[in-house]
Amino acid sequence: MNTKIIELAKKLETTTIERRRDFHKFAEAAWTEYRTASIVADILAGLGYAVFVGPDVLAEEAMMGVPTIEELEKHEQRAITQGANPQWVAKMKHGKTGVMGIMKFDKPGPTVALRFDIDANDVVETQDPAHKPVQDSFVSVNYGAMHACGHDGHAAIGLAVAEILASLRGELAGTVKIIFQPAEEGVRGGKAMVYKGIVDDAQYMLALHLGLGLQTGEMSCQPNGILATSKIDAIFTGVSAHAGVAPETGRNAMMAAATALINLHAISRHSKGMSRINVGVMNAGTGRNVIPDKAVIKLETRGTTSDINEYVYQEAVRIINASADMHAVKVDIKEMGSAQSAVSDAWLVDHIQKLAEESGLFSKVLPSCVFGGSDDYAYFMNRVQELGGKSTYLGVGATLAAGHHNSYFDFDEKALNLAVILTVTCAVDLLK
Amino acid sequence: MNTKIIELAKKLETTTIERRRDFHKFAEAAWTEYRTASIVADILAGLGYAVFVGPDVLAEEAMMGVPTIEELEKHEQRAITQGANPQWVAKMKHGKTGVMGIMKFDKPGPTVALRFDIDANDVVETQDPAHKPVQDSFVSVNYGAMHACGHDGHAAIGLAVAEILASLRGELAGTVKIIFQPAEEGVRGGKAMVYKGIVDDAQYMLALHLGLGLQTGEMSCQPNGILATSKIDAIFTGVSAHAGVAPETGRNAMMAAATALINLHAISRHSKGMSRINVGVMNAGTGRNVIPDKAVIKLETRGTTSDINEYVYQEAVRIINASADMHAVKVDIKEMGSAQSAVSDAWLVDHIQKLAEESGLFSKVLPSCVFGGSDDYAYFMNRVQELGGKSTYLGVGATLAAGHHNSYFDFDEKALNLAVILTVTCAVDLLK
Amino acid sequence: MNTKIIELAKKLETTTIERRRDFHKFAEAAWTEYRTASIVADILAGLGYAVFVGPDVLAEEAMMGVPTIEELEKHEQRAITQGANPQWVAKMKHGKTGVMGIMKFDKPGPTVALRFDIDANDVVETQDPAHKPVQDSFVSVNYGAMHACGHDGHAAIGLAVAEILASLRGELAGTVKIIFQPAEEGVRGGKAMVYKGIVDDAQYMLALHLGLGLQTGEMSCQPNGILATSKIDAIFTGVSAHAGVAPETGRNAMMAAATALINLHAISRHSKGMSRINVGVMNAGTGRNVIPDKAVIKLETRGTTSDINEYVYQEAVRIINASADMHAVKVDIKEMGSAQSAVSDAWLVDHIQKLAEESGLFSKVLPSCVFGGSDDYAYFMNRVQELGGKSTYLGVGATLAAGHHNSYFDFDEKALNLAVILTVTCAVDLLK
Amino acid sequence: MNTKIIELAKKLETTTIERRRDFHKFAEAAWTEYRTASIVADILAGLGYAVFVGPDVLAEEAMMGVPTIEELEKHEQRAITQGANPQWVAKMKHGKTGVMGIMKFDKPGPTVALRFDIDANDVVETQDPAHKPVQDSFVSVNYGAMHACGHDGHAAIGLAVAEILASLRGELAGTVKIIFQPAEEGVRGGKAMVYKGIVDDAQYMLALHLGLGLQTGEMSCQPNGILATSKIDAIFTGVSAHAGVAPETGRNAMMAAATALINLHAISRHSKGMSRINVGVMNAGTGRNVIPDKAVIKLETRGTTSDINEYVYQEAVRIINASADMHAVKVDIKEMGSAQSAVSDAWLVDHIQKLAEESGLFSKVLPSCVFGGSDDYAYFMNRVQELGGKSTYLGVGATLAAGHHNSYFDFDEKALNLAVILTVTCAVDLLK
Repeated sequence: MNTKIIELAKKLETTTIERRRDFHKFAEAAWTEYRTASIVADILAGLGYAVFVGPDVLAEEAMMGVPTIEELEKHEQRAITQGANPQWVAKMKHGKTGVMGIMKFDKPGPTVALRFDIDANDVVETQDPAHKPVQDSFVSVNYGAMHACGHDGHAAIGLAVAEILASLRGELAGTVKIIFQPAEEGVRGGKAMVYKGIVDDAQYMLALHLGLGLQTGEMSCQPNGILATSKIDAIFTGVSAHAGVAPETGRNAMMAAATALINLHAISRHSKGMSRINVGVMNAGTGRNVIPDKAVIKLETRGTTSDINEYVYQEAVRIINASADMHAVKVDIKEMGSAQSAVSDAWLVDHIQKLAEESGLFSKVLPSCVFGGSDDYAYFMNRVQELGGKSTYLGVGATLAAGHHNSYFDFDEKALNLAVILTVTCAVDLLK
Repeated sequence: MNTKIIELAKKLETTTIERRRDFHKFAEAAWTEYRTASIVADILAGLGYAVFVGPDVLAEEAMMGVPTIEELEKHEQRAITQGANPQWVAKMKHGKTGVMGIMKFDKPGPTVALRFDIDANDVVETQDPAHKPVQDSFVSVNYGAMHACGHDGHAAIGLAVAEILASLRGELAGTVKIIFQPAEEGVRGGKAMVYKGIVDDAQYMLALHLGLGLQTGEMSCQPNGILATSKIDAIFTGVSAHAGVAPETGRNAMMAAATALINLHAISRHSKGMSRINVGVMNAGTGRNVIPDKAVIKLETRGTTSDINEYVYQEAVRIINASADMHAVKVDIKEMGSAQSAVSDAWLVDHIQKLAEESGLFSKVLPSCVFGGSDDYAYFMNRVQELGGKSTYLGVGATLAAGHHNSYFDFDEKALNLAVILTVTCAVDLLK
Repeated sequence: MNTKIIELAKKLETTTIERRRDFHKFAEAAWTEYRTASIVADILAGLGYAVFVGPDVLAEEAMMGVPTIEELEKHEQRAITQGANPQWVAKMKHGKTGVMGIMKFDKPGPTVALRFDIDANDVVETQDPAHKPVQDSFVSVNYGAMHACGHDGHAAIGLAVAEILASLRGELAGTVKIIFQPAEEGVRGGKAMVYKGIVDDAQYMLALHLGLGLQTGEMSCQPNGILATSKIDAIFTGVSAHAGVAPETGRNAMMAAATALINLHAISRHSKGMSRINVGVMNAGTGRNVIPDKAVIKLETRGTTSDINEYVYQEAVRIINASADMHAVKVDIKEMGSAQSAVSDAWLVDHIQKLAEESGLFSKVLPSCVFGGSDDYAYFMNRVQELGGKSTYLGVGATLAAGHHNSYFDFDEKALNLAVILTVTCAVDLLK
Repeated sequence: MNTKIIELAKKLETTTIERRRDFHKFAEAAWTEYRTASIVADILAGLGYAVFVGPDVLAEEAMMGVPTIEELEKHEQRAITQGANPQWVAKMKHGKTGVMGIMKFDKPGPTVALRFDIDANDVVETQDPAHKPVQDSFVSVNYGAMHACGHDGHAAIGLAVAEILASLRGELAGTVKIIFQPAEEGVRGGKAMVYKGIVDDAQYMLALHLGLGLQTGEMSCQPNGILATSKIDAIFTGVSAHAGVAPETGRNAMMAAATALINLHAISRHSKGMSRINVGVMNAGTGRNVIPDKAVIKLETRGTTSDINEYVYQEAVRIINASADMHAVKVDIKEMGSAQSAVSDAWLVDHIQKLAEESGLFSKVLPSCVFGGSDDYAYFMNRVQELGGKSTYLGVGATLAAGHHNSYFDFDEKALNLAVILTVTCAVDLLK
């Protein structure tokens, strides 16, 4: 079987790389992945998958950090001019850019879910001639959107996995659900897919990430330190006034935001583990001589466990509300994203580790690696585990040109096929 | 008439000075003036005044910044050992140390109210041999209480005025109410007397203050800039916790108080006049390694008008409450004192100015002087004016050894008789 | 003489209104008044004035809040395409958009300086059809620049005054200097003209402002409450870092700015008069999960006297520097504008008041009016007075459609001619 | 040997308990342990130890958080009236209350150091009749000092250990140094003993602590999480002023302290481990209407490593200094205590664990326990390890009546003998 998978992957390798480069060139940030998603949907349909998109895979009430309708509609047009299938775009209207392909095999067996994230970052890609995407002409043409975290690769890997599993369908049992998630950046999309219930029937679930500090040829199926996180925007609204003539009639939104900021950073440490708080952006006021009636802060909280993150989050909400009260202004707190912490299933880690070792594909199979950031795949993991299933996350090494989210980010494309083979190997092993 | 008044005052002068020195020696701070008040009450009764004390002249619910029952009872004992009449002390129980003497004259006429404040300051009097009260052995024997604002003189003047008016009773019309107010320091007692309604029937009301930047021989009956003020204590109560072991379980009262402090000082200026805010005292926490569960701040607000003071006060209350909310602690805000702004009646100013000039007693009769602080006599003034009466405040010059509230404060005792004569002259003029 | 002036003004009235509307349509904000200034220069030259522009009337080192070279050069091009004389523009290169016309009369006499400001505001003018400039097609064509403070009128008045004085030259003595000042908004240009020394020889100096709360037909030549002010930008530069992975390696510029903000607003009130402080704009940070390495605040201080403003300014500078130190970031403090307080010359006020009353032009001649804001004409006034001259500021009433700096601002054009006649009357009176 | 040790300890048990109760009754807080130390010194001398006290065992320049001379001298008198040997007290003058007993055995061998801390806490002991020290009449007679951390037991254990080792002297090799450390509370005394060099020759070093969350009968010789810590006082000095009359002339020390407080709590988390910061006490200001010229804060920093603590400490110092600069006040920062983090020697942990297990004395021998606080024994450990020796810390279980530092604290006295036997067993094992 292993040999067969390797052969099938080999045949697809050029296509996989081409797809990755196409996605890279037409990079689409969170909730605007109309073109990427419609290409994915077309391919899945062509392979015989039952394809679900838009409201069928995303619970609208749980979508976070969605752009304005105006922006989304602009991107719908943009995507169509860049080759998106207008029929899919219509179904994905207003940001519902998720896709799921389902294939039921003849023999009864477990349901295995695989998740691939597809969105780009809000990063302006470098135009440096030394940057490989520039050299090979697949640098992003969408200004301000760049695949700087490898999700272009994840999407291409997902398509290759779908194709190989389809071609092996006669030998498999149960059901496979291949999920292409939008808006992983800012942890905005995972929750909405989980809330739709699309993995409630999964006995097993996997996802993968390229890189994670591992070099090409290395792998680990137990990334530790997936941090729980919440992303919040707070918009303070006061009353403006001439600062010289009648300052007492103003209601100072900037003072409220600054008071919040300083007290947010002073939230007490937690004895049970690491916590984080950061206000990364603050914009307030209009003119030098006007009491500011508007202030916006963008912040995030993190914790090594969901409980710790929840502690910081609740403290933050209280502080923000009280800061508004203090300066008699209003505040609107918007949840812009969130992710949980997650722990890999021990049996599954052990099992996949053995499969990886037996495959002979990897120079190093590490018992664990450090994730160190957040991923809303944690919602999927926790949901599957809650309902009795098993889940983990594959780290597939890929030598990088520059760190994640850097404008010079690029990865060794040899990693793509390794990831394809590993994923298919795991899926085939479980689908029986 | 003028000559007669001068003569009567002259005869009393030694007594007035002796009384002032006696009050000075047994200085009693706000709400503990049991001895001073009982001496006043005895003298007034002896002169034929109907005497009212305690709950008859003070509305309990409006008494502010009153010491604890324990402290008050200690002072009741102390006063008795220092010569207070136990019967009066019993009637003044628990801080109600106000006295009013009423004399109705046979002929019908207006009601004229005169107010004299009687309390000492929380100041440790200097023991410097150069200090006159030390030289002449009337330095305070009550540690921590000192007449550093001349109210010992005011009380003695009030008694002389009472005596002269009593001896002139055959020639007067209407009613005179001579009010001895406790707790003017910290502006804690005036409101409670006014709320009791004791000046609601007054057509005219006067008070006087020695000093005010005027030298002996100078006077003015229009002190401008009597500032409205509020005195507030805020007591924050949180939850203590070991700062190393479980900081997140604490609720930090000190952080709440500090957040309040900084934002209080940042209350916006008011375009209609001067405002002030000061947190003068802050005490918080118990041990270095304990999250502080207690914090107290003592503050005051001021404004050139009652409206401006009210603006600062309301801002302060909101900020204090929001600071408590911000750190999830409780806060108890206590009003410890308050005074209004006040404006002298133009006709009365003019009238008294003429009387003062005609008397030939004063080297300078100034059209106005600067008060620059607060006095809860403003409650009396405003109440009398509200009900259609006329009121002003007499500044009687007295050369000082050191500024008001200073531990070296002392005044030229020659000013006492000038004040007596001026007050009687005005009263006699109005009582017809 | 009075009749003659009125006749000359009458003849010019249509031209004055046309000029005002032309300046309004091609509104130019501070330091970019190339078109306005070159038109002024051409007209003055045509009238026989010796014309000085650019470095001849502005000391470069005292120019504040000047845009970048790139922006200035863009405006130089824009102005030329909108009809500016390229020769003048060349002389005014890089923001030196001031103009002065000098005319020496044959008879010896005093030097009289007149100042007119010419810049527009950074306001987007309303397109509401009810707005008169829209109706009559002179709404600003320069997006983001709008004459919302009447300086279009001031410039047109100045040109009419220049023309009438030129036509009366045979009857005048001494020298007149007609100064057209750029960048009054933000109080950025006055200091640079004064530092150049152009009014050091003036015995008398006048300026005027339309509006100031006065209706058409009212006037006053003693505006009180010209506040001293300083405009400051503070740019904090720290070190960015990933807020989750290595927060301790960052240097948080936003925290520094917020600490500054709150403490700036808490600068103590001043006992000698009103003070103001306002941070009107704050922008900081790049991304939610990045420790912010950049923060900018824009603030202003004010005081009823230059001393009080200086007190607030010095406090502000110390607080900003210490806030940067506190968070180990750097800060660059830029002076963006400043104005002094100023007091009108009593004799001149009295004298002009009489002239205004005698003229019969005004329905009300008020002894004083409230300025309530800042104007860097104060630099001129103080300089002239320092050197022994006399100076004041004329408030010429003009009924307004909406308040100063409002996007609906417009004034009653009947006021233009009243202002011309008043100014000429005063100038003629002094030039003898 | 084991049996012999147990027998010897058994014989001493009553004495050990009596000594512990005596120390408890005459509780002496940090740097005032004159009576405790002189009793220790007398007993050691009686047993044949060479005894060193005062400047021989403490480097004055490294003593931290020492009371004033006046207070120390008061305690010297107090201790003598409570039975301290005046000769020892003289040698320990001004807080140098440390003692070391040295015994060299005939046979050559290693130097083994044992450390016992002897100071009480600044706690008012409960007078509740249910509290065993009250029942059995050994409650503290020194108000405000209470043995609430078991150091009374440590001192008694140390004396028993000294006695048994002395009686076994014929069978031992090398040298034993028994160190009685003052001022462990507040981590003020350890550094000064280490700086004196008294453990520079130790090949092995042990200390013990009763309790640590272990019940009587449990033990562990590897307490993890000994936190590095710094204790700091910051005294801000400004200029007072009347808050109503001339606020701008004041320099507000309270504002400086509060600004420091809030920004201290906002010091960024550290990615390499846990950190802590706490301002536990703040006192500022004198009167409600006075700009505060004095403010004191007492704080501590902690970190799981000395590096992390140093990071927090350096941040704190910078913030405190900048807060003073911000409000133009002076600040004096005093180091009041410090301790390092420390890691037990693996071989020694393993070795003692075996000894403990073989002894059969303990119901549970745990591989590690959580210390969770700070102990300046870390200075000893690190010094010994630096110079090539081995060191660890013994946790000896003792069931508690209430937590450490609680006014109801008391421990099961059965633990005393277990601790004596364990310590002697280890010492005997190493002294060969």
